[in-house]
Amino acid sequence: MEETKIMLEEKEIPTAWYNILPDLPKPLQPYLNPATQEPGGLALPPPLFAAELSKQEGSMEQWIDIPGKVMDIYRLYRPTPLFRAKRLEAVLGTPAKIYYKNEGWSPPGSHKPNTAIAQAYYVKDQGLKRIATETGAGQWGSALAFACRLLGLECSVYMVKVSYNQKPYRRVLMETWGADVTPSPSKKTNAGTKILEDDPDCSGSLGIAISEAVEDAATHDDTLYSLGSVLNHVLLHQTIIGLECKKQFEKVGDYPDVIFGCIGGGSSLGGISLPYVKDKLEGKKVRIVAVEPEACPSLTKGLYAYDFGDTAHLAPIAKMYTLGHTFVPDPIHAGGLRYHGDSPLICSLYDQGLIEAVAYHQNPVFEAAVTFAQSEGIIPAPETAHAIKAGIDEAINCKESKESKTILINLTGHGYFDLAAYDDYLSGKLEDYEYPEAKIKEALTHLPKV
Amino acid sequence: MEETKIMLEEKEIPTAWYNILPDLPKPLQPYLNPATQEPGGLALPPPLFAAELSKQEGSMEQWIDIPGKVMDIYRLYRPTPLFRAKRLEAVLGTPAKIYYKNEGWSPPGSHKPNTAIAQAYYVKDQGLKRIATETGAGQWGSALAFACRLLGLECSVYMVKVSYNQKPYRRVLMETWGADVTPSPSKKTNAGTKILEDDPDCSGSLGIAISEAVEDAATHDDTLYSLGSVLNHVLLHQTIIGLECKKQFEKVGDYPDVIFGCIGGGSSLGGISLPYVKDKLEGKKVRIVAVEPEACPSLTKGLYAYDFGDTAHLAPIAKMYTLGHTFVPDPIHAGGLRYHGDSPLICSLYDQGLIEAVAYHQNPVFEAAVTFAQSEGIIPAPETAHAIKAGIDEAINCKESKESKTILINLTGHGYFDLAAYDDYLSGKLEDYEYPEAKIKEALTHLPKV
Repeated sequence: MEETKIMLEEKEIPTAWYNILPDLPKPLQPYLNPATQEPGGLALPPPLFAAELSKQEGSMEQWIDIPGKVMDIYRLYRPTPLFRAKRLEAVLGTPAKIYYKNEGWSPPGSHKPNTAIAQAYYVKDQGLKRIATETGAGQWGSALAFACRLLGLECSVYMVKVSYNQKPYRRVLMETWGADVTPSPSKKTNAGTKILEDDPDCSGSLGIAISEAVEDAATHDDTLYSLGSVLNHVLLHQTIIGLECKKQFEKVGDYPDVIFGCIGGGSSLGGISLPYVKDKLEGKKVRIVAVEPEACPSLTKGLYAYDFGDTAHLAPIAKMYTLGHTFVPDPIHAGGLRYHGDSPLICSLYDQGLIEAVAYHQNPVFEAAVTFAQSEGIIPAPETAHAIKAGIDEAINCKESKESKTILINLTGHGYFDLAAYDDYLSGKLEDYEYPEAKIKEALTHLPKV
Repeated sequence: MEETKIMLEEKEIPTAWYNILPDLPKPLQPYLNPATQEPGGLALPPPLFAAELSKQEGSMEQWIDIPGKVMDIYRLYRPTPLFRAKRLEAVLGTPAKIYYKNEGWSPPGSHKPNTAIAQAYYVKDQGLKRIATETGAGQWGSALAFACRLLGLECSVYMVKVSYNQKPYRRVLMETWGADVTPSPSKKTNAGTKILEDDPDCSGSLGIAISEAVEDAATHDDTLYSLGSVLNHVLLHQTIIGLECKKQFEKVGDYPDVIFGCIGGGSSLGGISLPYVKDKLEGKKVRIVAVEPEACPSLTKGLYAYDFGDTAHLAPIAKMYTLGHTFVPDPIHAGGLRYHGDSPLICSLYDQGLIEAVAYHQNPVFEAAVTFAQSEGIIPAPETAHAIKAGIDEAINCKESKESKTILINLTGHGYFDLAAYDDYLSGKLEDYEYPEAKIKEALTHLPKV
C-alpha cells in the first residue's frame, strides 16, 4: 500500500539551510540605500536587522547551520508531511502524480514561522529583547508573535488599521501569544502621528505600518525590525521546505517534473524551489513556476528595474520585477500576494529563465481551492490556492497529453481565517478585476532614478 | 535527543476499534423508547441510524475492524502525533512528564471526524445517499460535512439559528465542503414550521435542531440521521485516539499515570481513555479524569437516572448522570460541553469508580489555555482547554509532592474558530457563572417516570 503522507522522522529534519547565493550563475545586484541611492546591504545605520541576518543576506556559504534552539521550535510542527493527492488525481482523472507539501500544521497556520523563529532567535542571541514589525491581514504578525513568545522576546506589531478593525481574529491570535498589537497609523510614532494629524480617519496601509515599525525599531535601543518575505535571508530560512521535500521524494523514489508556488514577496516559492534550482543548475530537468494574481502581476507584467521596497522609501532599493512602489492593487482576498515587487533573488532567476511565471484571476483560483477542499479535505489559504490552481491546470494538461508527470505544490497555509473569502466565492460575489494597465503604467513613472 | 512528537507510521494506525462493552464489569442499562418508555436499542422505527451503527451500539465483539475506505480517509490526518510538552513542563517547573495527543490537525480541526467518517461510510455502504444532522456552534456539523463530501454523500445540517448568524465561518466551512446548511428553526420541517408559527423570531436551540434533523431523516427514504457524541458507537470510533496513544507510549517506554479529557457528551474522554479502562480492569494502575465546566456539571453535580437525551423527547431515554433535559446552561464559550447529560457508558464507569470527574470555571480554564498557547504554541479549543487546565493542576501538584508522574491530555481541537472567546478572556470580559443550583433542582423534577 502506498502512503498518503510521506513523513520524515524528527531526526531527519535538515540541520542546515541552503544558501543559493554562491551557486548563482550571475551575482545579485546590490541593494541601494533609499536615502543616498548608494550600494549597501541591509546594515544601514541604525541597524534595523540582527547582525547575523544582515550577514546571511549576502553570505557566500552554501550551507548555514540551523541553531539548536531554532530546531527545538521547528520540531513543534516539522517535519511537515508531503501528501500524495490521490483523491484529487481521481477527481481530475489525470495520469499525473500530484504531491503537496503541507505547511499549514504549524501553530500560526502557515510557512511563515520557518523564518520568524530564526529571526527571533538571532535577535535574542544578540542580547536584544524586542522586535517590531508590520502586518497586513496578520499572517506574518501572528508567525512572529508565536516565535517571539517561544523565544522569550517582546513583539510589537503595527497592523494596518482597516485589517485591525475588520479581521479581529488574527489580532486576538497575536495577543494570545502575548504580542502588543497597534492599529496603524498610531500616535506611538512620529510617522503615524503626522499622518493622523493630516487625516485623523486614515485607515492605514502596509507602507505606513512599515514606516511605524521601522521607526519603532530605530528609536528603541533594545529593539530590531523584522521582515517576513522578499529578502535573501527570509528565503534562506524557508529552504527547509524544499530540503525536506527532497528527502521525502527520495523515500518514494520520485522526483518532481514541475513545482508550483504562489508568489507575493517570494518566500513560499523560494522556500520550496531553491533547493531544486540547485539541481537545475547542475543539469537536472525540473520546471519551477511562480503563480501570481492577475490583479498584482509583478513577474508577468512588471518591469525589471531598481525600485523602492516600500511606499515610504525606508526599505532598501532593490532590483526586481516591479509594478512601481506606488501601485495599489485591487482588493483581492489573497492579501499576501498584493506586493508591488518580488524577491530580488526570485526576480533574478526569473530573468535568467530558471523560473517561469503565470497569473490567474481569483475566481478560477477559488474554484480550484474548493475542488481541492472537496477532494483532499484541506481548506487552503487564498494565497496558496494560486499554486493549487496552476497545479490542477498542469494535471489537466497531463490528462490531454497522457503524460504521467510528477507535480509538486507548496501548500503554505490553511484558510480557516479566510472563510469570508470563500463565502464571497460560493455566493458569487467575488470580482475578477481587469488588468490594471493604466495604474501600472502610471506607477512605473515613479521608479527611483538610479 | 528525545523527540518532541512521538509519531507512528501510517501502517501503524490501529486497524480495529476497541469495543469495551464485552469487558464491562456491569452491563449498561438499556435505552428506552422515548415514546413508549420500553427497552430497545437505537433501531427505533423508522430506522434513524445506519444498521451497522445500531449493531455496533450493542455489539459484544471486543474488536471491530475499521473498513478500508474509512482507513483511507483517516490517513489524511492520522496517525496524530503524541507531543511531549517539555516547554510547558519547564514553564510550570514540574517534575511531571506531560504528554498531549493532538487531534487538531484533522481538516475540520478536531477529533470529530474519527466518527463522522465511520458513520458516513456505513450510511453510504447501506446504499443511502444523504445524512441529516444538527449542529450547535458547528464543530460536529463541519466534521460530518467533510466526511460526507469525501465519501460522496449529501449532507444536510440544521444549525442553531443564533450560531448560524453569529458564527458564519463554521457555516462557510460546511458549505465549502458542499453541505446544505439550514438555520434552525426552519420551514423545511413540520417541527420548525410549528415553532416559527408560534415565535417567528425564535433563535433556535440544539433541541429544536435535533427535532428538525430527525424529522428530515425520518421523512426521506434516502436519508439517515447521525449524532456526534454520547452514543456507544461514537465512543467506539473514537477509541482510535487511545489505541494510538498506547502504541506511542510503548515507543518511548512510558505509560500514563493519569489521563485527562474534557467531557460534554463523552467522545473526547471516551476516545482517549477506553483502551486504558481495559488495562485498568486487568489490574493496571491508571487514573482517568473527566473534566467538565462548573456551568454544566453533570458528572460532579448531576443525578444518575434515566433521562431524555434531548429536549424534544425524540432521542432514546438513557441512564446517565444528568442535570435534567430541560436544564439550559449559562452561555459559556465551551459550547461543546453544554450538554445536560453524558455518555451512558462513561456515566456507568464513573458510577463504578473507574473514572473520576472534576469541574472548572471558564476563567481558570482560559488562563490555562493561554499558558499552554504561550509555551507549546498551539491555541486550544475552549472545550479541550478544560482538560489542559486539569493537567496543569496535576503537574503543579507533582511539583509540590515532588512526583514525576506521567500525565496524558487529550487535545481534541484547535481554537482558531474560538478567538472571540480568547478576546473576551484577555480583555477581562469573561464571566464565571455561579453554580446553577436552583436551575438544576428545577430541571431534575422533569425526569421521565420510568
